[in-house]
Amino acid sequence: MPPIKQHFKVLETDPGSAARCGLLSTPHGDVRTPAFMPVGTQGTVKSLAPDTVKELGAEMILCNTYHLYLRPGHGLIASLGGLHSFMNWHGPILTDSGGFQVYSLGKLRKITPEGAIFQSHIDGSRHRLTPELAVEIQEALHSDIMMCLDECTPYPATFREAESSLSLTLSWAERSRKARADSSDQALYGIVQGGMYSELRKRAVEAISAMNFDGYALGGLSVGEPKAQMEQIVQETAPLLPADRPHYLMGVGTPEDIVKAVDCGIDLFDCVMPTRCARHGLLFTNAEKVVIKNARYREDNGPLDSECDCYTCRNFSRAYLRHLYVAGEILAMTLNTLHNIRYYMRLMEQIRNAIGCGQYAAFKTRFLESRLKA
Amino acid sequence: MPPIKQHFKVLETDPGSAARCGLLSTPHGDVRTPAFMPVGTQGTVKSLAPDTVKELGAEMILCNTYHLYLRPGHGLIASLGGLHSFMNWHGPILTDSGGFQVYSLGKLRKITPEGAIFQSHIDGSRHRLTPELAVEIQEALHSDIMMCLDECTPYPATFREAESSLSLTLSWAERSRKARADSSDQALYGIVQGGMYSELRKRAVEAISAMNFDGYALGGLSVGEPKAQMEQIVQETAPLLPADRPHYLMGVGTPEDIVKAVDCGIDLFDCVMPTRCARHGLLFTNAEKVVIKNARYREDNGPLDSECDCYTCRNFSRAYLRHLYVAGEILAMTLNTLHNIRYYMRLMEQIRNAIGCGQYAAFKTRFLESRLKA
Repeated sequence: MPPIKQHFKVLETDPGSAARCGLLSTPHGDVRTPAFMPVGTQGTVKSLAPDTVKELGAEMILCNTYHLYLRPGHGLIASLGGLHSFMNWHGPILTDSGGFQVYSLGKLRKITPEGAIFQSHIDGSRHRLTPELAVEIQEALHSDIMMCLDECTPYPATFREAESSLSLTLSWAERSRKARADSSDQALYGIVQGGMYSELRKRAVEAISAMNFDGYALGGLSVGEPKAQMEQIVQETAPLLPADRPHYLMGVGTPEDIVKAVDCGIDLFDCVMPTRCARHGLLFTNAEKVVIKNARYREDNGPLDSECDCYTCRNFSRAYLRHLYVAGEILAMTLNTLHNIRYYMRLMEQIRNAIGCGQYAAFKTRFLESRLKA
Repeated sequence: MPPIKQHFKVLETDPGSAARCGLLSTPHGDVRTPAFMPVGTQGTVKSLAPDTVKELGAEMILCNTYHLYLRPGHGLIASLGGLHSFMNWHGPILTDSGGFQVYSLGKLRKITPEGAIFQSHIDGSRHRLTPELAVEIQEALHSDIMMCLDECTPYPATFREAESSLSLTLSWAERSRKARADSSDQALYGIVQGGMYSELRKRAVEAISAMNFDGYALGGLSVGEPKAQMEQIVQETAPLLPADRPHYLMGVGTPEDIVKAVDCGIDLFDCVMPTRCARHGLLFTNAEKVVIKNARYREDNGPLDSECDCYTCRNFSRAYLRHLYVAGEILAMTLNTLHNIRYYMRLMEQIRNAIGCGQYAAFKTRFLESRLKA
């Protein structure tokens, strides 16, 4: 068995749910869970300086192996001292395996038992990503947490297709585990697939848990299935994960998704939603969904979100934010992203506080009711 | 005569040149001159938050009447409390008159004695900008310093053309002066035109000075003429300007242009060069011109400019800046702009220090020699 490469301690559990607060210790610092990781695809959380990301309250970010492998290249990043130094983010970093990005390439990729063959979205060049290479790249980047290469089971998939996809993911997990350097100080998380089939998810948890990873992720969700189906899989699967390791729900999601998944015992989240929505002028507030380009904000001298303490909300009116967005100004991207990330960070703080007070069930009910009104 | 709307005091003069240090006091604070104003075209210095602009050392910025008139509209800005509050920049603001932007529209504009008729670059709508309207817009924006509407004399122009253009500018200057509200706390500067003709420039200074403006600008330069011709006009014309008022060289220029113009007694500058170059990955350093996308910076782990104290230079390598630029990341724009503005601000600090020490001639010689090597 490989050694555990991180320390994770559950600090509080909620009496009315499976929600829990924890402390995840990594070589680059501690992360209070439940935590949301802003996505820094190409080695930058789009439009934000790393100091700003930290000030907003983010303790860990996610970077994409696929993107950094293609450009500027993991060898270059390693030769310059690793990803933390390259991007000047000195907190924890989780890197994905590249599997999901390759899956998203559609016709530009082919999956074989050996690995995934794909064409670069940048220049069409051909590449082969294997479980061993995914570990090698992530070791070169020197992230705090690595993910095993997996196959994201498409939706919809028949039971047989999902079963066959799962067995590929399980064999790749075993190969990833073996590929990791014994001397590594990087954690490695296994990924539970199994499509929308409870039985396969259960089988996946058993097999992946037996490999003794540092943490466990639920993958292959939020890929087009109805919300209710995703929620059911999370509700059924999360309680089966080893309780003493972090539980990570990959690529999810909306504030509602997060609040519900925390209830099932999920500790870690990542999603492009706050950053991507920001760049499209879609802004999160508890009171209403703000589409900042709308004419109704033209003369609105109030703050974007009167409950928010971010730089954007403290200093600018909706009318100004609308002007920047309509005029195509770069500052619109920055101010919008800053707010949306802060909204997510405040949500995670509220979630942790509610669990700490043993009031998570009530918090969840109140939050979901308020969102229905928004 | 209208009252003087600002206080300007020459604090130091250089024994070997016409260079001078001064303090320009406005309703929104003091500006140490010689000063460079970053350009905030649409109510934002592109890609920078106003707090950042201030931290970089900028004391006054320039905003464009033409752009803000078209979008979001000066009436809207006035109703929201004026431009300072709208963009959350609480230092001094100089607004141009819109004349140069209208001139730049080429075939989309027509000049009549009454004013300029033009079509919006945004939606093709037709507008008429008169000297009176230019003052009205700038009063609505409530800038600290307004500029008279002028006609930028095209280059090349015959003597007769330049003379005729100048008389239009002079009549517009008189109309601007009359249009200004007596109760206004905003300064109004007159603009010296006259093309490349020394005689016309001299005549322009005499006529404009007689109108007793709060400050005087040289316009119609850096419009396509050879560098030497621009320098000659500045050398001949600047010494004729009233010594007790600020001298502003509009739309200029490169670091070399600024160093030479200060030598002639210019106090204020503005130019899109540092911000626009930054967005195209062209970065200013004293040692070399950095075109950040170049392959030579791919593995360069050193700072952009080892002499610079900005956030970009303190925290990121050339290799990372190249990666961000090549990958089309928004953060590239922000980090590059931040550096170029800081470069200009440091240059102005060095200029003021050299004048303060009575060493400007030596500074200028050393600086221009070092730029030839760069």
